[in-house]
Amino acid sequence: MTTEPIRSAFYRGDKIFTVEQAQPIEPGPNEVRIRVAYCGICGTDMHVFHGNMDARVGKNRVIGHEMSGVVEAVGASVEADLLGQKVVVRPLDHCGQCPACKAGYQHICHNLKFLGLDTDGAMQELWVVPEHTIHKLPADLRLDYAALIEPVAVACHDVRMSGLAVGEDVVVIGGGPIGILVAMTARDAGGRVVISEVNPNRLAIALKLGFDTVNPIEADLAQEINTRTCGKGADVVFEVSGTQPGIDAMTAVAATRARIVMVAIHAQKPQIDMFQFFWRELKLIGARVYEPEDYEKAISIIASGGVDAETVITDVAPLTEIQTAFELLDRSPTAMKSLIKVGEIE
Amino acid sequence: MTTEPIRSAFYRGDKIFTVEQAQPIEPGPNEVRIRVAYCGICGTDMHVFHGNMDARVGKNRVIGHEMSGVVEAVGASVEADLLGQKVVVRPLDHCGQCPACKAGYQHICHNLKFLGLDTDGAMQELWVVPEHTIHKLPADLRLDYAALIEPVAVACHDVRMSGLAVGEDVVVIGGGPIGILVAMTARDAGGRVVISEVNPNRLAIALKLGFDTVNPIEADLAQEINTRTCGKGADVVFEVSGTQPGIDAMTAVAATRARIVMVAIHAQKPQIDMFQFFWRELKLIGARVYEPEDYEKAISIIASGGVDAETVITDVAPLTEIQTAFELLDRSPTAMKSLIKVGEIE
Repeated sequence: MTTEPIRSAFYRGDKIFTVEQAQPIEPGPNEVRIRVAYCGICGTDMHVFHGNMDARVGKNRVIGHEMSGVVEAVGASVEADLLGQKVVVRPLDHCGQCPACKAGYQHICHNLKFLGLDTDGAMQELWVVPEHTIHKLPADLRLDYAALIEPVAVACHDVRMSGLAVGEDVVVIGGGPIGILVAMTARDAGGRVVISEVNPNRLAIALKLGFDTVNPIEADLAQEINTRTCGKGADVVFEVSGTQPGIDAMTAVAATRARIVMVAIHAQKPQIDMFQFFWRELKLIGARVYEPEDYEKAISIIASGGVDAETVITDVAPLTEIQTAFELLDRSPTAMKSLIKVGEIE
Repeated sequence: MTTEPIRSAFYRGDKIFTVEQAQPIEPGPNEVRIRVAYCGICGTDMHVFHGNMDARVGKNRVIGHEMSGVVEAVGASVEADLLGQKVVVRPLDHCGQCPACKAGYQHICHNLKFLGLDTDGAMQELWVVPEHTIHKLPADLRLDYAALIEPVAVACHDVRMSGLAVGEDVVVIGGGPIGILVAMTARDAGGRVVISEVNPNRLAIALKLGFDTVNPIEADLAQEINTRTCGKGADVVFEVSGTQPGIDAMTAVAATRARIVMVAIHAQKPQIDMFQFFWRELKLIGARVYEPEDYEKAISIIASGGVDAETVITDVAPLTEIQTAFELLDRSPTAMKSLIKVGEIE
């Protein structure tokens, strides 16, 4: 096993990362060590950058979880044939004891540890994780594309929770990085997707990806959806905007018995049209992270090209440039997904 | 067929009913005429009484839909063996053409006519309705108890939409007439039910009916439910209060992946804790009126004594006293369900 020092990027508070030499950790029992290839910058990582999560992550934390890599070492009681295997990590560690775990919902464990926030993450050359968190990749899958698997798994979970059937009408409210992935995943599942978005740059990307779009500032979204669906409305709605107008739109565009998936995190309590829930028997479904089957689905979508990774990945920077990469992403009007190239492997 | 004049109660606006003689209508093709036995006073009827629905019902309307009776005449192409049959009416007439009807959700038809609001109802001795709206009753079922079938069918629909399984923990927020029926129906389905209610009279009735209760003004409801469920929370929540504190409580008491059924009509848009929907993957389910199977279930619950009709029916008055009955119910702190005895049949 290697004992050479590795490069790790530490979040130090106040919008500062430092890239430092660190001693690699040996994998313990039931753990594997991964040589990290790429790690995407998630919206949550931007929240860390802005100092909004200091109480949770501290100022001595390696963050990052949207990663890909290759198994480089294994701990006791882990099969050695994993060595050299391309993998991604499902960054959730559950307690196994709480009511959620006992009910089979380990992914929303009451005491869930999120790797890369509650523990050190993937913005380091070698990353040690529990074996149960890894998913194997096909040998020919590009590792830059594979760094999209985590956010695509979020989208797969959202789409699975919606119960979307082939041919159903879908509205995605909010065309940012997660909204676009939800839209592509819903289209891959057979949905007829319209994206509602106000930002012209994001609308342009959505159009480039072949989506029907509506700018709700320029047109009456509900009327547009009714016209497209002969007065029926959308069977499935994904609220990804995190805004009050998005909340208002989600009930306005919904068909009778529509399912509305709450993807966005609303820190404030929005006002919601409960009368429409009653009147049209709408369903609102909260969806958080993913389960193992969502990861397997995301791997197959990325492998089959169901998500246009080439268009979604708008920037790649080396680990040594992580500070600049966060700063650029923070002010970019056009970026979708920025990757950090953590290690020199392909 | 009878051509004797009948007694009908007309809503005349401004909290006034008049009981008048009227000429009975002959049943047309696919219609039946029912000699009405009992008709309960619904919360919606109280809204009519208060003048809140004048634009919809007008001031020349026979209201009432929570009824029981006996088929007294049949129109063309209706089987004559229905004559003398005890029945209740599912007071919904759908268009058959709209997207909801085409999707199989006739009960929430976009152009739904509600009998007794959009057409004349059951506060008259003889009532003509479409044959497709009637449900047959067992010959030995008491017709006063049978007048509860319509509101019990609402409760059956709510419980069915929740997917309640035997042994699940249930919280009913609001212990008024519908809340109590939802609680009894949920208990009949195998739920372990706690009723949250602030009104001491209603709490007393809930206790008399054998329910565990919490007064959320005197105790921390979420803490009480957590204690009773070892930190899990309620698997199913029915929001029947129609209040902002009820909306706050529904997410506070909910277990991971709980289903929350929106029974109450919230005319204002309440503020809802969307973060909890995301964090615990909660589901919110809008539920309105009932489908035919809910009526069949309600008939079997009333017939089996699964709902304590004797306790729920707190007043019975003859049709000639309808004005007094509405006035008394309007100011009674203890009434649950008031029935009008419309005709002289048992």
